[in-house]
Amino acid sequence: MATMRDVADRAGVSIATVSFVVNNTKPVSASTRERIEAAMAELGFRRNVVARALASRRTRILALAYPALEHRLSTSAVEFITSAAREASSHDYHLVVWPVSNDSAELADLVGQGLVDGVLLMEVQLDDPRVGLLQSMGMPFALIGRTEDPTGLDYVDIDFDTSLELCVSHLWDLGHRRIALISGDQSVPSFERYGPYVRMDQAYRRIANERGFEEIVLGVRSGARYGREIATELTRIAPDVTGVVIFDEPAAAGLLAGLHTLGRRVPEDVSVVSAIAAIDQAFACDPPLTAVTAPGVELGLLAVQALVRRLEGGTPLPPQLRTGSFVLGESTAPPPASGRRRAATRRTS
Amino acid sequence: MATMRDVADRAGVSIATVSFVVNNTKPVSASTRERIEAAMAELGFRRNVVARALASRRTRILALAYPALEHRLSTSAVEFITSAAREASSHDYHLVVWPVSNDSAELADLVGQGLVDGVLLMEVQLDDPRVGLLQSMGMPFALIGRTEDPTGLDYVDIDFDTSLELCVSHLWDLGHRRIALISGDQSVPSFERYGPYVRMDQAYRRIANERGFEEIVLGVRSGARYGREIATELTRIAPDVTGVVIFDEPAAAGLLAGLHTLGRRVPEDVSVVSAIAAIDQAFACDPPLTAVTAPGVELGLLAVQALVRRLEGGTPLPPQLRTGSFVLGESTAPPPASGRRRAATRRTS
Repeated sequence: MATMRDVADRAGVSIATVSFVVNNTKPVSASTRERIEAAMAELGFRRNVVARALASRRTRILALAYPALEHRLSTSAVEFITSAAREASSHDYHLVVWPVSNDSAELADLVGQGLVDGVLLMEVQLDDPRVGLLQSMGMPFALIGRTEDPTGLDYVDIDFDTSLELCVSHLWDLGHRRIALISGDQSVPSFERYGPYVRMDQAYRRIANERGFEEIVLGVRSGARYGREIATELTRIAPDVTGVVIFDEPAAAGLLAGLHTLGRRVPEDVSVVSAIAAIDQAFACDPPLTAVTAPGVELGLLAVQALVRRLEGGTPLPPQLRTGSFVLGESTAPPPASGRRRAATRRTS
Repeated sequence: MATMRDVADRAGVSIATVSFVVNNTKPVSASTRERIEAAMAELGFRRNVVARALASRRTRILALAYPALEHRLSTSAVEFITSAAREASSHDYHLVVWPVSNDSAELADLVGQGLVDGVLLMEVQLDDPRVGLLQSMGMPFALIGRTEDPTGLDYVDIDFDTSLELCVSHLWDLGHRRIALISGDQSVPSFERYGPYVRMDQAYRRIANERGFEEIVLGVRSGARYGREIATELTRIAPDVTGVVIFDEPAAAGLLAGLHTLGRRVPEDVSVVSAIAAIDQAFACDPPLTAVTAPGVELGLLAVQALVRRLEGGTPLPPQLRTGSFVLGESTAPPPASGRRRAATRRTS
């Protein structure tokens, strides 16, 4: 890398003079400036981004605030981070990762340093103290996820309604009428008001109400071992359930294993659909899971676009809700005969 | 966030004067400086990191160059990234993610911008053009992984020898004598000289030679579907294998499912051990996999420590090789009777 010293030597001036030109800190005669700029071009010297940042009051750095709480959507997090970094790069921005907690003190400290032009907030909660903080600090931001009332905010999020609708419709069309939702356990402190769980619950209750089936909701902690436990609990409290939508990827695999251990065959006895799954994870299961995938790559890209538009004075990007793809695995089939009675009756009527 | 204007108003000076103090660009009388600094303290104004960077020629930003090639160790990548970001933060550094390819042109461009003080290289290949590039640019760096001859470089890596030794010893001690390695497929262009695959192969061949068992090595592409395929291939080319070490997490789950489909029971007929696994993934499998875990958190932390020492003139951190934990699942057991013959014979001798 050509240094200022190299440029100075080539141009026959002092390093200080080069610095005056690079950092625009002092006037320099036109001929000297010309010599220095020629030397910089020859040597491939790049005007330092730090100097540029100081001059423009823009660092062209964005932060991704990635809370250190247990990461529920972790399987798509790498996809998300790399997609966001790539999109930032295509707009000539850098992306720093801030592994901060969901409380706002740490974030305030980082924002106050003046390093970044804007912030992407991940793992947004319904009442998220970070939103008010960033507003009060005048720091542009975009949400991945959304607060209870995100009016006026820039956000991108999973379309939980459509995602769950895809899962339930698939089971319903196969003839299932006893359909349970296994969602996140909101009794875990950091997930009390965790948007994805709340929205998934709401979507399920709305759909159950519309279609007229009984609501059966269980909460599961993230992790395969908890999935195994929930298989036992589900079988105990609702043995006649024939269709399950599960919204936790590690737990989904554990659920399959747990049902297997209990002698309940998937899909012959119970059908299982994974909501917001990483496709490869779903296909790693036995049997491969029917799933609606997480739109991690797309959300990473859109979140950066929303923020960049805000920073550069473009038309704000309207809120973006996205659904992943429906992927048919081998974990779903029509319900067993007894459970299919209603559907069969209907078919013959 | 207090702005320069706020500080100027409070101190009764112009913004330019505040800027002279903040950015240290022009001398200011002692009494004025004092008033401005008092105002900054009252208002919680933080001296801009950009100005500090320009003054100190240090940005206190580190880059994590995370190649956009298929990520083989992706399940632990989030752990790695967040651990590195947290450790950087504890040393008062920020971490930017650069999703660059393994070729060096893109990296040269980013390094040349002068944004970062040092670089962490992930997914290091045996002949990695990025190493020579960073050396020639005088940019400090540390490797996660290592080149063929990493003498003199700062690196942290998985201890493949010990990891594989743990896997094979476990199978050996159970009585297995036909032990295959399913490693990455090096015929995939970007993984031709991929260090982890090469080292894992070497470790396996060394151990097979030492213990005197026949080498059976298969390459698998990453992904559950390929794991299913490799189950068929393994059964075809080496039907008498009773123990398998597999070094690809998504494929491991597919292997189990594939063996199950073929009517080969795990662990009754075949034992499977997953090398360099994420613990939760291993336990999501059916049966839960016996595994040696990936030391992602530890490597993220150590890599940052190595780089920070280099940047701050401390004693260089010697190369760090780490092994994850051995976790006993339910995928391993003594080999079936026929496969156990040799072991049984030996026991009675």
